[in-house]
Amino acid sequence: MNAIDRLIEKIKQTNNPTVMGLDPRYNMLPECIKQKYNGSIEKICEGILEYNKALIDSVCDIIPAVKPQMAFYEVFGIAGIQCYQETCKYAKEKGMIVIVDAKRGDIGSTAESYSNAFIGKTKIEDKLYGNDNIDFVTVNAYFGTDCVKPFIEDCKKYDKGIFILVKTSNPSSGELQDLKLENGKTIYETMGNLVENWGQELIGESGYSSVAAVVGATYPEQLKTLREQMPHTFFLVPGFGAQGGKAEDVALGFDKNGFGGIINASRSLMCAYRSDKWKDKFSDEEYAKATRSEAIWMRDELNRAILTK
Amino acid sequence: MNAIDRLIEKIKQTNNPTVMGLDPRYNMLPECIKQKYNGSIEKICEGILEYNKALIDSVCDIIPAVKPQMAFYEVFGIAGIQCYQETCKYAKEKGMIVIVDAKRGDIGSTAESYSNAFIGKTKIEDKLYGNDNIDFVTVNAYFGTDCVKPFIEDCKKYDKGIFILVKTSNPSSGELQDLKLENGKTIYETMGNLVENWGQELIGESGYSSVAAVVGATYPEQLKTLREQMPHTFFLVPGFGAQGGKAEDVALGFDKNGFGGIINASRSLMCAYRSDKWKDKFSDEEYAKATRSEAIWMRDELNRAILTK
Repeated sequence: MNAIDRLIEKIKQTNNPTVMGLDPRYNMLPECIKQKYNGSIEKICEGILEYNKALIDSVCDIIPAVKPQMAFYEVFGIAGIQCYQETCKYAKEKGMIVIVDAKRGDIGSTAESYSNAFIGKTKIEDKLYGNDNIDFVTVNAYFGTDCVKPFIEDCKKYDKGIFILVKTSNPSSGELQDLKLENGKTIYETMGNLVENWGQELIGESGYSSVAAVVGATYPEQLKTLREQMPHTFFLVPGFGAQGGKAEDVALGFDKNGFGGIINASRSLMCAYRSDKWKDKFSDEEYAKATRSEAIWMRDELNRAILTK
Repeated sequence: MNAIDRLIEKIKQTNNPTVMGLDPRYNMLPECIKQKYNGSIEKICEGILEYNKALIDSVCDIIPAVKPQMAFYEVFGIAGIQCYQETCKYAKEKGMIVIVDAKRGDIGSTAESYSNAFIGKTKIEDKLYGNDNIDFVTVNAYFGTDCVKPFIEDCKKYDKGIFILVKTSNPSSGELQDLKLENGKTIYETMGNLVENWGQELIGESGYSSVAAVVGATYPEQLKTLREQMPHTFFLVPGFGAQGGKAEDVALGFDKNGFGGIINASRSLMCAYRSDKWKDKFSDEEYAKATRSEAIWMRDELNRAILTK
């Protein structure tokens, strides 16, 4: 099944357009994990894996997808990469959709290797090697079409998908992305048009394409406009929660049927155990329960906002 | 010493503005390596490491820098990452400047982790972890200032440098990068201005900044204009050789004193052994000698073009 249809199916099944970002920083870890695993990067990465797995266990029946952010694994070197691979494998086993946030991109021939590394396969000595546990990877398409094409080929071959950066959620995203071209369109709108076109060949039964887009929650008006301008493009929306995006803001990324987007939350889910909202109800050791409570709150909050927008 | 001064010093010492791209694809490997190392990804990555080391040995006295392209290591998983780390270590031991071509970029808090992973350090349990064998990393700044700032902080702290994508060498680079803004400037010129500004705090004794730029050789007129518009920005110029850029083209990226740029060649150096130019003079086993001959040819060709432009 087309990757975006798979994701939308899973969103319907859980009635929840949330993706849990798995961005494990050392200082996010609960004390119980820090105390059990210490003394070396390898041990700490074992701790992160236990943490990730516990979070996955606690939400896999109510959240459709996870999004490991590569930067937080790469920073731990080999042990971090192993932890990332195991995390993807575990999430997949638990039936979740895996979106790897790697923001890769390079010129055509090199992009092919990046694509193969995440969503495709590499042929060596007549054997095919690849990571079967990844459904989607995020892509930076500053390079233009020849950067995106190898990813699209792998999407077709292996029923995978990509999310291309259109409008990012960070404070300085407008510096380049909001600049207006001669034709009156902004750079992010132009990127949006490119994405909508690249996606034409991969539109699934849902009406959305497996070539999808990243559009930040922190710029709600732009999210709303892009939703109108990109009718076949599914949105991954970061910026909810810790970055300041509200349910009413992200609701603008959804279509009239209440689909078309998935909202990322990383810190607010991973660190629910120490948030003002939950820290009195759950102990440090109950971090996964706190995450589940926050996930249910977020699901209901999103559904309320999507229904009433 | 400031990273860009270190690189320029090394270029002067070798009288050679070449960086050898280490982009090892399986089908590039000489038969002698393929026969010695086979049967598993781990074995093949051992072969790639032997190949990389032999190439480094053969040119480290005449080429100032190497540029491993992460995509070609990531595609081999853990074994590939190990090979990349060992390659950086070996090049560093041999006195070469190491530029990792990773084209990383993300929003501020995540960019910090990417920066730490390549040119900085991460503090965990009061210990600092990082990769000491890397001098520069390439960066994709579609996100704006808050993506670049964490890299700049690490450049300052650890005397490292970054190359930010301004104008890439691929056929479709113009699709987005050449579009004109309302003010008449193109997107790549706008990115160029941003890079020149970001670099102000890191200008070395050479007059160039450790915040440098990637500008492709395949668009010589644009390279020339950017050279004039970005007087403190050092250029990493891909696209020479296999991608079609000629010595006369890349010479336009240099200043009146013959500095300001370094030219990448990957395939033409790595696969010199099977090129029309060298295949009759060297056997497969003499692949490293062929690379040295090509490196000398390229050095002389570049210097001739730079002197006569």
